[in-house]
Amino acid sequence: MTEFDLKNLNECLEEYLPTDKLKEVKRILYGLDEDQILDLPDDATDIAHKHGFEIKGYRFKAREEQIRKPRLVRVGAIQNSIVLPTTASIEDQRVAIWNKVKTMIKAAAAAGCNIVCTQEAWTMPFAFCTREKFPWCEFAEEAENGPTTKMLADLAKTYNMVIIHSILERDIEHGETIWNTAVVISNNGKYLGKHRKNHIPRVGDFNESTYYMEGDTFHPVFETEFGKIAINICYGRHHPQNWMMFGLNGAEIVFNPSATIGRLSEPLWGIEARNAAIANSYFTVPINRVGTETFPNEYTSGDGGKAHKEFGPFYGSSYVAAPDGSRTPSLSRDKDGLLVTELDLNLCRQIKDFWGFRMTQRLPLYAESFKKASEPDFKPQIIKESLKPNN
Amino acid sequence: MTEFDLKNLNECLEEYLPTDKLKEVKRILYGLDEDQILDLPDDATDIAHKHGFEIKGYRFKAREEQIRKPRLVRVGAIQNSIVLPTTASIEDQRVAIWNKVKTMIKAAAAAGCNIVCTQEAWTMPFAFCTREKFPWCEFAEEAENGPTTKMLADLAKTYNMVIIHSILERDIEHGETIWNTAVVISNNGKYLGKHRKNHIPRVGDFNESTYYMEGDTFHPVFETEFGKIAINICYGRHHPQNWMMFGLNGAEIVFNPSATIGRLSEPLWGIEARNAAIANSYFTVPINRVGTETFPNEYTSGDGGKAHKEFGPFYGSSYVAAPDGSRTPSLSRDKDGLLVTELDLNLCRQIKDFWGFRMTQRLPLYAESFKKASEPDFKPQIIKESLKPNN
Repeated sequence: MTEFDLKNLNECLEEYLPTDKLKEVKRILYGLDEDQILDLPDDATDIAHKHGFEIKGYRFKAREEQIRKPRLVRVGAIQNSIVLPTTASIEDQRVAIWNKVKTMIKAAAAAGCNIVCTQEAWTMPFAFCTREKFPWCEFAEEAENGPTTKMLADLAKTYNMVIIHSILERDIEHGETIWNTAVVISNNGKYLGKHRKNHIPRVGDFNESTYYMEGDTFHPVFETEFGKIAINICYGRHHPQNWMMFGLNGAEIVFNPSATIGRLSEPLWGIEARNAAIANSYFTVPINRVGTETFPNEYTSGDGGKAHKEFGPFYGSSYVAAPDGSRTPSLSRDKDGLLVTELDLNLCRQIKDFWGFRMTQRLPLYAESFKKASEPDFKPQIIKESLKPNN
Repeated sequence: MTEFDLKNLNECLEEYLPTDKLKEVKRILYGLDEDQILDLPDDATDIAHKHGFEIKGYRFKAREEQIRKPRLVRVGAIQNSIVLPTTASIEDQRVAIWNKVKTMIKAAAAAGCNIVCTQEAWTMPFAFCTREKFPWCEFAEEAENGPTTKMLADLAKTYNMVIIHSILERDIEHGETIWNTAVVISNNGKYLGKHRKNHIPRVGDFNESTYYMEGDTFHPVFETEFGKIAINICYGRHHPQNWMMFGLNGAEIVFNPSATIGRLSEPLWGIEARNAAIANSYFTVPINRVGTETFPNEYTSGDGGKAHKEFGPFYGSSYVAAPDGSRTPSLSRDKDGLLVTELDLNLCRQIKDFWGFRMTQRLPLYAESFKKASEPDFKPQIIKESLKPNN
């Protein structure tokens, strides 16, 4: 058995565990009760079946309140493979992915989604493994006025849906530099703003620091008609302080468009975005692409292995985690998929009141401690056998 | 089936899943290869069998280096129930727990452990649910000169073992105040120092803020003969910035002595300490007590339910997580147990070099952002439909 014979962890558990054990295993693994399935309209599932992508629905409820009404929001997470070979023209590759994902967005609209988010760098293969600048840099486009934002703005308006998409950005006004950027389009079809990836990897095949630098947009939260949302792009997922700042700025849902592969990060995948949901009392939506991408020229992985042309497989497994620590099962590890999740955003404040993590977080202490720790003459607080603390 | 019919998640998976599926499920859930079992000497397992507690052994390997030799350390985590009814005298209750745990420490020594850590407030029932000050405050004792530290110092010297224990501390020199404190005893049997719990819960039955305040010892790392260690006590587990400061001070292993119960935190238990191991490139050792504790007087849980006398069940499930995101399976959910894990501390630096989370963490940015976020006139970075960012 190879690792991709196991298409879906949750379905494997459902196949083999007896009902009573399965219920307890799911409670421990997911914190999830079984009635959290969201029934999806036939319009949506028909599109999925016709076009061969997975569609799943879940819901997270909140306690009924006296003053506030429930704030139900449906969120769509889209994971997909590329369509054409990476040797096709840039334009053809992009349009082929557009067409596939437009259909998935249509299904999301049919499923009643208010907010949809793509995977990282969704218009292109994840070519940063190659360290080649050309032709890949040609995928970069302007955040506000690029062709993809314009195309999605029409859909956003048509479907009355906030769309977040994650692209390679070209900043024409600042030296034509390239960034890894998420763009937020309002449900009126207007460009709302952008966020640039704060933490850039230099690990395995992820040679992204060859192409773009650490983001300069801090931690914006976008106040939309459907809630306060933010985007933590891919590798920023590994940095709890990054997640935390989105929370401090008031986010209720933080999307995590990603591109990541098995042996590198799969055991971490279920942990980090979920921990962020817990620690910050908000919902998180980690999204990962699927498929293996093949490039025209060989490259090496910096691991002593042979030069090769394949990058992947990306393991999908997109999911949603809630502030109470529960989470949905994952989408498939190898298929295109749309995950539709209904959230009651009231759960965020309820969990803040219940657990009190914001109240107890002692922010001034950490501001000061982080400041000290980043100074050149920082002396770690070490206690040695001599019994003389050195701080 | 009640929730405690499932004694151990991992054993349940092993019972029902076919071998090939099990291997992949374990890789995804634990990031663990199957050869990571550590064979324990008969001396150790005999003690465990004779005294009716679980004993398990695992190992985490590291890459062989050219300059540094492997730095193998064996760590023992002890989870246990109390022994006598909570109506017995303070002294009798304490000595009965001492005697049980002394045997477990003896087994740890026989298993070659270099460092052992107890669960939180290990000398007593977790009586903070009651909000009664008496007689429970009488369990408090001095960190350096209290009877429990003295008793353990003898064992530490005898077994050449660092012992960390987590107690209710009475600070005689500062107004006789009470603290929730972890004490570190060196393998020479010397008091090395202490750390006071940084984050105090006010949730569910955890009325700890009735008894003690937030710790004033910052984030000490204890440099022992067997590595640099730190202690994040219980609820501090929910705060990523707390974990992070121990890492910034150089910790290679962070113990998390805890006391926590099922419906409240079990879906979070496998996430938080493991996320900390990943984010900070160190090992973490979360330890939780087992059993249900019954108190003489009724108390309420602040949840509208009936007054009652029981607290628990505490679900055990102690485990070890490694910097690469892998983890051991958990100890039992309801039995006393000793988890012996051999770590190669070289893995910490190897993972720092590989993933680069320290290099990419942008500490000055977060020092400044946290400072702003804790000021009274803080304005969150919000972008609204008007397209005018307010920051």
